[in-house]
Amino acid sequence: MVRFAVLGCGRIGRMHARNLARHPRAELAYVYDIVAEAAAETADATGARQAGDVDEILAAGDVDAVLIASSTDTHLDLLVRAVDAGKAVLCEKPIDLDLAKVDTSWQRIKHRKPTVMVGFNRRFDASFQALRDRIHAGEIGKLEQVVITSRDPGPPPLAYIEVSGGLFRDMTIHDFDMARYLLGDMHAVNAVGGNLVDPTIGQAGDIDSAMVSLIAKSGALCQISNSRRCAYGYDQRIEVFGEKGMLQAGNQRLTTVSFWGAAATEARDPVLNFFIERYTPAYHAEIDHFVDCVEKGTAPLVGYQDGREALRLADAALDSMRTGQTIRLD
Amino acid sequence: MVRFAVLGCGRIGRMHARNLARHPRAELAYVYDIVAEAAAETADATGARQAGDVDEILAAGDVDAVLIASSTDTHLDLLVRAVDAGKAVLCEKPIDLDLAKVDTSWQRIKHRKPTVMVGFNRRFDASFQALRDRIHAGEIGKLEQVVITSRDPGPPPLAYIEVSGGLFRDMTIHDFDMARYLLGDMHAVNAVGGNLVDPTIGQAGDIDSAMVSLIAKSGALCQISNSRRCAYGYDQRIEVFGEKGMLQAGNQRLTTVSFWGAAATEARDPVLNFFIERYTPAYHAEIDHFVDCVEKGTAPLVGYQDGREALRLADAALDSMRTGQTIRLD
Amino acid sequence: MVRFAVLGCGRIGRMHARNLARHPRAELAYVYDIVAEAAAETADATGARQAGDVDEILAAGDVDAVLIASSTDTHLDLLVRAVDAGKAVLCEKPIDLDLAKVDTSWQRIKHRKPTVMVGFNRRFDASFQALRDRIHAGEIGKLEQVVITSRDPGPPPLAYIEVSGGLFRDMTIHDFDMARYLLGDMHAVNAVGGNLVDPTIGQAGDIDSAMVSLIAKSGALCQISNSRRCAYGYDQRIEVFGEKGMLQAGNQRLTTVSFWGAAATEARDPVLNFFIERYTPAYHAEIDHFVDCVEKGTAPLVGYQDGREALRLADAALDSMRTGQTIRLD
Amino acid sequence: MVRFAVLGCGRIGRMHARNLARHPRAELAYVYDIVAEAAAETADATGARQAGDVDEILAAGDVDAVLIASSTDTHLDLLVRAVDAGKAVLCEKPIDLDLAKVDTSWQRIKHRKPTVMVGFNRRFDASFQALRDRIHAGEIGKLEQVVITSRDPGPPPLAYIEVSGGLFRDMTIHDFDMARYLLGDMHAVNAVGGNLVDPTIGQAGDIDSAMVSLIAKSGALCQISNSRRCAYGYDQRIEVFGEKGMLQAGNQRLTTVSFWGAAATEARDPVLNFFIERYTPAYHAEIDHFVDCVEKGTAPLVGYQDGREALRLADAALDSMRTGQTIRLD
Repeated sequence: MVRFAVLGCGRIGRMHARNLARHPRAELAYVYDIVAEAAAETADATGARQAGDVDEILAAGDVDAVLIASSTDTHLDLLVRAVDAGKAVLCEKPIDLDLAKVDTSWQRIKHRKPTVMVGFNRRFDASFQALRDRIHAGEIGKLEQVVITSRDPGPPPLAYIEVSGGLFRDMTIHDFDMARYLLGDMHAVNAVGGNLVDPTIGQAGDIDSAMVSLIAKSGALCQISNSRRCAYGYDQRIEVFGEKGMLQAGNQRLTTVSFWGAAATEARDPVLNFFIERYTPAYHAEIDHFVDCVEKGTAPLVGYQDGREALRLADAALDSMRTGQTIRLD
Repeated sequence: MVRFAVLGCGRIGRMHARNLARHPRAELAYVYDIVAEAAAETADATGARQAGDVDEILAAGDVDAVLIASSTDTHLDLLVRAVDAGKAVLCEKPIDLDLAKVDTSWQRIKHRKPTVMVGFNRRFDASFQALRDRIHAGEIGKLEQVVITSRDPGPPPLAYIEVSGGLFRDMTIHDFDMARYLLGDMHAVNAVGGNLVDPTIGQAGDIDSAMVSLIAKSGALCQISNSRRCAYGYDQRIEVFGEKGMLQAGNQRLTTVSFWGAAATEARDPVLNFFIERYTPAYHAEIDHFVDCVEKGTAPLVGYQDGREALRLADAALDSMRTGQTIRLD
Repeated sequence: MVRFAVLGCGRIGRMHARNLARHPRAELAYVYDIVAEAAAETADATGARQAGDVDEILAAGDVDAVLIASSTDTHLDLLVRAVDAGKAVLCEKPIDLDLAKVDTSWQRIKHRKPTVMVGFNRRFDASFQALRDRIHAGEIGKLEQVVITSRDPGPPPLAYIEVSGGLFRDMTIHDFDMARYLLGDMHAVNAVGGNLVDPTIGQAGDIDSAMVSLIAKSGALCQISNSRRCAYGYDQRIEVFGEKGMLQAGNQRLTTVSFWGAAATEARDPVLNFFIERYTPAYHAEIDHFVDCVEKGTAPLVGYQDGREALRLADAALDSMRTGQTIRLD
Repeated sequence: MVRFAVLGCGRIGRMHARNLARHPRAELAYVYDIVAEAAAETADATGARQAGDVDEILAAGDVDAVLIASSTDTHLDLLVRAVDAGKAVLCEKPIDLDLAKVDTSWQRIKHRKPTVMVGFNRRFDASFQALRDRIHAGEIGKLEQVVITSRDPGPPPLAYIEVSGGLFRDMTIHDFDMARYLLGDMHAVNAVGGNLVDPTIGQAGDIDSAMVSLIAKSGALCQISNSRRCAYGYDQRIEVFGEKGMLQAGNQRLTTVSFWGAAATEARDPVLNFFIERYTPAYHAEIDHFVDCVEKGTAPLVGYQDGREALRLADAALDSMRTGQTIRLD
């Protein structure tokens, strides 16, 4: 049984709290949020105690692991404090928006050999795991091309955009991690982008549409297509192409029903709308894996350095878009 | 080079005339229709001569084969006369609506060992041929179940319904032939039907919706589903099920385009609307096969007795629907 | 909170016990099985008490509802005793194999206005519910045809076949209920069947393959296709056809991955293998609904008379297959 | 009736000759190839005369149009000579590999206002035309992203690679034209590539795998994915994404049959193997359109400047890959 505290009771924090409360091998001991009402509500819904502050949690003897789901600017500080307090950490992405700070923090905590996992939930999706397993099993021979389509149903509030670190660090970072999950480390990145969806995003200095090309160290190529708005739901598809064939992982819906009528045939439902709906089983599997790691003392599938590498790719993509240069990463 | 005359210049006759006019191994010598204007127009469009009457065609030395596409009630008489005149015959379905007449006519012409082919065009569809070939190649092991879906886009004019012989002899007859093509001869048939689409069809004494069950002599089972109206086009699907798996042949469209939007995803075009659009390549292949048979003196894939057997199944289905009895055929 | 006892700890009973143990509004108080080890194991896995006999459960003040998942021959007796003891009952299908007994038992208990639900789990499948909802919303206009494909991955043990009541009462009964769920009451039934899969099933006096035609009181037609063996998994599809179009509900898989290679393209995984995998969410929704009914005192979506009607259709199908007659039901 | 000569009787020239010979509004007068046997064989198959040299064709009074299907290095010279001789020209892609030469040749011939069409056959594919029509009809709102997948079944002979001008000018040039067909003129291009398929291609100084990003003048983004080898056939797909949704055009097969078995379900045939199979109807429509243009004196849908622009994009892509710079095109 792993005893958890959840820091941050926003949308994703509440989801994690609920999942932990029902997990057979986890116990949700505490929740905390700087907005006391949010924490109270989550405590209420899950039976957890509401902590008065973070220190109370870090000092608690009955907390083994901390799940950090607070705002991005607080992630790294909380992570370091939790590690210093001897806790295992599951931290939502990104670790931080500043690569240098990510590196210096690591220097400070690495001697503890901490159990730190970054919340790249997509690695725990059954279909994407099947892609990786079947690539590794040799089903498509040598892997040569990966095509990742990743489009959000709609843009976040402008206030979020402004502190998000920009599309590459906030949204594409998941795709960069997925590219590394399937292809390993990268050799070079090129990115183009635009402000096609919502002019206020452009006014805030960000883009809302992007296409990224990556060259892996293996020589394999990868494309990512991003949009902050997608009329038919949360578009999450991956195609992997190799010498012996191709595997595709497609979108998901609530039912299998299709409609045939005068105007259209085989029409399916819109796809699941956003990450909590689409990746529900993946979030459960993510917690399962983290609990396993804490119980057995094994290294998480996606650790601190994976969080760092995805951020480095995001920084390089931004650099590429600004300079028009393909950025080398080795 | 096989020299043809086409008898009957309605919708299907004109299509056959056009196909013959362009066929590399066929020559369209004559066309005839009791409506002289229809024949004239077809002659014009194809470069064929317009015959004054059927006898002119049957007497012509430069006619090897007669394609009968006139109204159903004239089929058998023309077929017999053409055979007697030494012509090969490709006759549209059904041969006739009266099984006894079909049998006595055969007695009269069989000594000539005539080349007679019945226009069950669906046997020449590439997808349905692939089903048969793959069944015979053992891909699904022993064949146990066949499910045929066959729905017309809309009912024919009431005047046609009244002389059609009824749904089973006019429409299902294609499905009965397809069942025999895939399963061989039949042991028993049961049919239920209804007048669900258009009350005037019921007033004319016919049904417009039917479901038929067949037991093949092999023991395998078959289901047919029919409707005279289908909102999304001409629904033509077949599913064959056996011990090692299933093969499905689906509907066809003009393009591969699918649409993803807020209300529906992966929405395809309506299916090809009716037999001439859907079975264009099959009609070409049918002519190819018949030309082959005439040139080489071989027996057509679908002969006089196949036309007779399909009619016998239609009669039995009607009998079953009226009596509530499963009708044995052996 | 509804307090449950589970009678019968076989495969389906264990599944129900697990689901109840985790249900937020249910409490699993007791389990019982005539094989004490089976009950002990289930008690162990769920934290429930193991009852010494059924009477202990029926007398228990802290049991509101009894879930009957024992062998079919015990269902009706347990149901009646539980109702007499004032318990709500969720009974696995079929209620019994003897229609007369089903009716006399109802006469005996109906004055209690009992809350009795029959475990036709498929009614709680999200895709099939969407079919029904969309039919009722008028999306395909008047409903004219229903096609139900229902094939098990492999036959049960011969010992089970022998006490099962035969294919129609054991397997098709689910499809009869689904037909009623979508189409309402039936006017007539016709059935053909065969022993195509496994000769020992035939030697036991049963069939393993069947095709059934139904005419609903509305005039709409329905086809069912059954097999006791299906190479690609548990085949569960429904097609509903009406004046404005068609809706199809398809099979389900663990992932969305498809493979494109030299021999085949767009190849998907085999479908979910059997009822517990395929209908997991439906079994949860079934319990939800029953708990709702017990808490609110409302009538279950699928009650005693629905169980009776499905059995009546099964009996009529058997009669039809034996006599070759279409059997009228009104 | 437009009277044609075909220059070049290789694979694609023979196909064009056959198509012209059967075209109702075209007449194939002459064929020519520097390999006399190739021309003789094509003449034989089509009933055309075999010209002794190109001058004979250019001087012939009964030739209205010249179809150039000879080797790439001869295209531009033949094009200019044919225009000078007053012929309409349908020229296979690319016009030439040297952009400067393309421009100076145009300066020389433009005063004639010649009817010159470039053989970008994919513009005549029914599915891709439907994409364009539906984009223009506003079905997906403002167009924001285009994703083109274009993979050949296998690499051409090394001898061909060596004179091909490289992957971008030989293969991607079709995709550059398709991008312009859907998106209009381009603002910038970035390309990455690799030698992943066959080392001898790399030794010949070429790549066999590429990913290209384009920014259109409209701001819309486009991705192209290329490979010289594809295990499942000739992969030709396009996805267009806009504010209101997405349209996809998929691969094509000979039949609609799918297989369901123990190892895989819904498995379709491999896709049509290469351009002649895949684009047969498009090649017919291309000729139709050209014949229309010659008969009516209208400008072809894809003219000399379209050929030039596709080449310019190919040159820029090569430049981008070599320098690591995104290349601006305005």
